[in-house]
Amino acid sequence: MKLTVEDLVDVGRGAAFLGTGGGGDPYVGRLLATHAIEEYGMPEIIEPDDLADDAVICTVAMLGAPTVIIEKGACGDDVDLVISRMEKYSGQKTDAILPIEIGGVNSMLPIMAAARSGLPLVNADGMGRAFPEIQMVSFNVYGVSCTPLVVTDDHLNSLVVETGSAKRAEDLVRVASIEMGCSVILSSYPMTGRDVKRSAVKGTMTLALEIGQAIARGRHSGNPVDELVNYLRTTPYYNQCKVLFDGKVTDLRRETTRGFAIGFCQMAAVDGSGRSMEVTFQNEHLVAREDGVVKAIVPDLICMVDSETAEPIPVEALKYGQRIKVLGVSAPPILRTPESLAVVGPQAFGLEEPFVPIELL
Amino acid sequence: MKLTVEDLVDVGRGAAFLGTGGGGDPYVGRLLATHAIEEYGMPEIIEPDDLADDAVICTVAMLGAPTVIIEKGACGDDVDLVISRMEKYSGQKTDAILPIEIGGVNSMLPIMAAARSGLPLVNADGMGRAFPEIQMVSFNVYGVSCTPLVVTDDHLNSLVVETGSAKRAEDLVRVASIEMGCSVILSSYPMTGRDVKRSAVKGTMTLALEIGQAIARGRHSGNPVDELVNYLRTTPYYNQCKVLFDGKVTDLRRETTRGFAIGFCQMAAVDGSGRSMEVTFQNEHLVAREDGVVKAIVPDLICMVDSETAEPIPVEALKYGQRIKVLGVSAPPILRTPESLAVVGPQAFGLEEPFVPIELL
Repeated sequence: MKLTVEDLVDVGRGAAFLGTGGGGDPYVGRLLATHAIEEYGMPEIIEPDDLADDAVICTVAMLGAPTVIIEKGACGDDVDLVISRMEKYSGQKTDAILPIEIGGVNSMLPIMAAARSGLPLVNADGMGRAFPEIQMVSFNVYGVSCTPLVVTDDHLNSLVVETGSAKRAEDLVRVASIEMGCSVILSSYPMTGRDVKRSAVKGTMTLALEIGQAIARGRHSGNPVDELVNYLRTTPYYNQCKVLFDGKVTDLRRETTRGFAIGFCQMAAVDGSGRSMEVTFQNEHLVAREDGVVKAIVPDLICMVDSETAEPIPVEALKYGQRIKVLGVSAPPILRTPESLAVVGPQAFGLEEPFVPIELL
Repeated sequence: MKLTVEDLVDVGRGAAFLGTGGGGDPYVGRLLATHAIEEYGMPEIIEPDDLADDAVICTVAMLGAPTVIIEKGACGDDVDLVISRMEKYSGQKTDAILPIEIGGVNSMLPIMAAARSGLPLVNADGMGRAFPEIQMVSFNVYGVSCTPLVVTDDHLNSLVVETGSAKRAEDLVRVASIEMGCSVILSSYPMTGRDVKRSAVKGTMTLALEIGQAIARGRHSGNPVDELVNYLRTTPYYNQCKVLFDGKVTDLRRETTRGFAIGFCQMAAVDGSGRSMEVTFQNEHLVAREDGVVKAIVPDLICMVDSETAEPIPVEALKYGQRIKVLGVSAPPILRTPESLAVVGPQAFGLEEPFVPIELL
């Protein structure tokens, strides 16, 4: 895969769609990535299957409250430091950078990190979407240790965590990130090329780009949501895909609490049928219920887009009266296994309903 | 200096006195140290001036809420891990263990750490007393970096912090310690033998032992407070020493907040003169005022002992009606320099009064 600076708009829009409401606004990430590419050049993007089995790969990401990430960004030195600290602590030279999630800002930050460090970027991630917590990735599900995990901030303070469980690391890093100003740079899941091949969600940078391109194409032809759905049906992961609801926001509750944006959005159908849908979220959308009946549930993707333009709408941009189409999209198969559902399924978010694939609802 | 297991009772009582109300109950520390000595033997205790200039020394301590430290103790593996993680991260083999403070439980934990690791223990510390925060040590005042700093817990999770400032490290480690269960093992201030010689408060393990012995001697002769005061007058640091007040507790406010025990203790004179004294504390006692006039103030030591037995009374054991003698004791000269006062003087604790040495009050 090859990327140009111009492609970043489409990648960002696709990543916002795959962010399923969360993952942070890719706009700031795009500015950071663009700036880094102008200074250091576009990084090479390599396919996971082209990695040497013993290559050393780590993820680089931003972690924090999306509202703060928008204001603070990343200074660059914090990104360089997170890689060098990971190398110092693990005693291994890094061969490539891997996104931890493709959704939102974390589609862009690895591009910035790869450009600055001169390392290639792997066309894959650990979710094929976005999730709010560090343990919620396929790497963790399939036995890659989350730690050593490194956190840096814009004052170049650093933190290295080693734990026996990714959830423990999440709890520790979450409180530290708040103390470090609610927005930090994170490197985690140091792994081998072999680990990437067996545990990553592959090709997701390409998919984000093509989702963005489909939306752009649809705007030219006048039917962006249809164009988007048609494209998704051709993909290896997102092919079970339907418009669940065409509505208008009638109620919205959104609190920033425990470091997350938590709440729900209620919509009334625009067809005058009297139907209503409620979508609940913890940064990302968790479950969509129509008149109390589940229509889509994590880890399947629940994506809200503007009815006219198919622009993905993050939870922080939801507004009363907005016209929204809600899409239900199948998650990558690796997230639907029993082992994955224990970590990223409904019960991991405190929901009572079992996971049922979108195509069976 | 040589120690026996029997000496630990006197060291612990002396350390409780030098804890000036804080530093944690040395009783639990003594049990841990005794157990380690029975299993691994008494560690060698060496004088700071006998260290090679390029020897590698680090502090080992417990950090957390004293109330929790009493319940959790240290499992031993967490102490071994903190030393090995420090060595891994700094890339240097440790040559000796140094107490960060002589007050309270942290007089004992380094004995345990030295016994388990087979390393010698240095007869010195960074305070000659106890203080509540990581940056409040002579090492920091005299240019030794607080980091890399390692924290471990009883589940063998670990954290390595690197910052540009000891206060920043304190803030980060404090929130992490709360998430790790309010009681953790800490290794910090990795330094050379040369650093120890120029920045440590020397001979404080000996002084703690001899303070404990003076109290014990006084109990035999029937006058423990006098015996204690007479002994202190012969020491290199604590020679400016007086009984400030002989009173009875009439009011007590003590809150556990922000990870500290914060409050004040009011006493009425037992001589019927109507005089009263108020001592305020943040873990350790900060200022003693008699009818509003300062009689002693940090970094000088304000020590409360039982009027009859001279038993040091930590803030968590203060009770209404208790008969207490309040002693004012000069701090080691290294804590009274302008550079030190900026870090451990009254203003560092939010007090308005300037530091005035006890001998001038």
